[in-house]
Amino acid sequence: MGEFELIERFFKTPAQAASESSTVALGIGDDCALLQPSPGMQIAVSTDMLVEGRHFFADVDPFALGHKALAVNLSDLAAMGAEPLGFTLALALPPERARDEAWLAAFSGGLLALSNAHHCPLIGGDTTAGPLNLCITVFGQLPVGQALRRDGAHAGDDIWVSGTLGDARLALGVLRGEWTLPPDVMAAARPRLERPTPRLALGVALRGMASACADVSDGLAGDLGHIVKASSVGAEIEASMGAHLTAAGAFASLAGGRFHSETLLQLALTGGDDYELVFTAPATARRAVQSAAERASTPVTRVGRIVEQPGLRLIDANGQPTPLEARAFDHFG
Amino acid sequence: MGEFELIERFFKTPAQAASESSTVALGIGDDCALLQPSPGMQIAVSTDMLVEGRHFFADVDPFALGHKALAVNLSDLAAMGAEPLGFTLALALPPERARDEAWLAAFSGGLLALSNAHHCPLIGGDTTAGPLNLCITVFGQLPVGQALRRDGAHAGDDIWVSGTLGDARLALGVLRGEWTLPPDVMAAARPRLERPTPRLALGVALRGMASACADVSDGLAGDLGHIVKASSVGAEIEASMGAHLTAAGAFASLAGGRFHSETLLQLALTGGDDYELVFTAPATARRAVQSAAERASTPVTRVGRIVEQPGLRLIDANGQPTPLEARAFDHFG
Repeated sequence: MGEFELIERFFKTPAQAASESSTVALGIGDDCALLQPSPGMQIAVSTDMLVEGRHFFADVDPFALGHKALAVNLSDLAAMGAEPLGFTLALALPPERARDEAWLAAFSGGLLALSNAHHCPLIGGDTTAGPLNLCITVFGQLPVGQALRRDGAHAGDDIWVSGTLGDARLALGVLRGEWTLPPDVMAAARPRLERPTPRLALGVALRGMASACADVSDGLAGDLGHIVKASSVGAEIEASMGAHLTAAGAFASLAGGRFHSETLLQLALTGGDDYELVFTAPATARRAVQSAAERASTPVTRVGRIVEQPGLRLIDANGQPTPLEARAFDHFG
Repeated sequence: MGEFELIERFFKTPAQAASESSTVALGIGDDCALLQPSPGMQIAVSTDMLVEGRHFFADVDPFALGHKALAVNLSDLAAMGAEPLGFTLALALPPERARDEAWLAAFSGGLLALSNAHHCPLIGGDTTAGPLNLCITVFGQLPVGQALRRDGAHAGDDIWVSGTLGDARLALGVLRGEWTLPPDVMAAARPRLERPTPRLALGVALRGMASACADVSDGLAGDLGHIVKASSVGAEIEASMGAHLTAAGAFASLAGGRFHSETLLQLALTGGDDYELVFTAPATARRAVQSAAERASTPVTRVGRIVEQPGLRLIDANGQPTPLEARAFDHFG
């Protein structure tokens, strides 16, 4: 199958879907796509490359892969407070994949389902023969000056996270053979790894309210670490929030208490692949943050505060350092 | 070397270079980059993925590879009449490349030299381990409604090409062992393959003048074919222009006439990798096109005309079909 036929059959967004978006002035089929941002808006851009064997297993469900490839990019838009405009897909396919119509149909099905759900059409791309590689670049827009950057956190700000953390890593551990989970627990954890939910509505709702924001792709410690470094501040996380931070806590109860709370905290801090948002906001904005989260139908939890002293620390309920600290920041596997 | 160190050392655009461009509101280091198009401008987007063994040889000069990876993307902006704003780079590197600082420095040197020459800063990216793969997405801007699309050619329009065609394919044939060239001829042809020149100034100069435009990445027949298909017209190319179309003609004279004019025409029609522009314009605009080309310091040649009858045809100086036709459109190798 040639490049044009492959795009035409599996990836071309229906003209109707593209024309619904007044921001896409020209979609697939010319030398460039054309985006027309609304007046007063900036364009947000992010790119992620996914490689077989590193970001996904060769036998991954192709529908889930299509979903995740776009979801991780949309998550970057969410972390900036941007609303999606469209995306490009560059795809290297080994010959056996390029011939596998069932695989291609399922992959594009997962990709385009999420694309449609967020009014984020495929506007261009490239296909080539080569080891399996997916590179998506996503475009969003947001009002000038309202981006949720990483460098705006101030000492005294609260630290918040959306949703739950650590679940994706819990599921990955099962797939890697590091531990086992009862089937019903794995059934709840696995979609968090394979079909993450980009928190786009929350990102938009936090415009003008959050002082800094990032998405949690590498684990809370790593991504909050980017915020404190960019903002030249430090952070204290309440260790007791560990069980609140992770749905793995609930899963673990279901699983008969086989995971120690310290392990769950580690999953949340260093697990990665959650695609939740970690953000900071002034303590005076607590009610506003809760309202924004409700408008976005996305639960948020306050887990600590920004301090002047650089670095990340775990503290107990009395604000004292905990002995967990050294172990908690160790990277899994 | 970790991802952040690799970007910091080899790819981070100096703050000064990024801040020179008022359109880049935020560069590398956050969840997204931010672009601020000028009022009344649209954003043009294109993406290309280059794979080792398919788009370049493993032993390619890394400086040339860096140049070409960006040049082929800038060529898409040129074909749209857009001026560059910035680009993202996603890079999968095998471990031996990630450790090869000389290779990385040369690759980024070629990339950033062209980036600087066109005020097109690196604004974001991704690096990962994996089989060598380069995916660049480039952003440009152009006034709303002035894009040089593929679908605007009309019967009676002239067909023009910039520069010369076929030279890249001539050099590729030597590297593939298909033929030989005297060293001085190869020295002239090889840069056309490895360091193509994106025709950005010409693209901008043709705004409001060309009725359709594409870049010549697959050979004139293929890319003019996209224009006539998108415009629902046909094209006649004057076969006698073959020698004018290709610097290979001059090279071949140097090489002692070893290439038949029919072969040169084939190189121009189907060779690919030239990254010149093919465009159409009303016959009334001939002087304006020549002026635009002079302003852009880019030679252009009129090679044929658009007709109503679909398809591509080769004609002789009297407008009659030539017996070359069937062979001339055969793809090389």
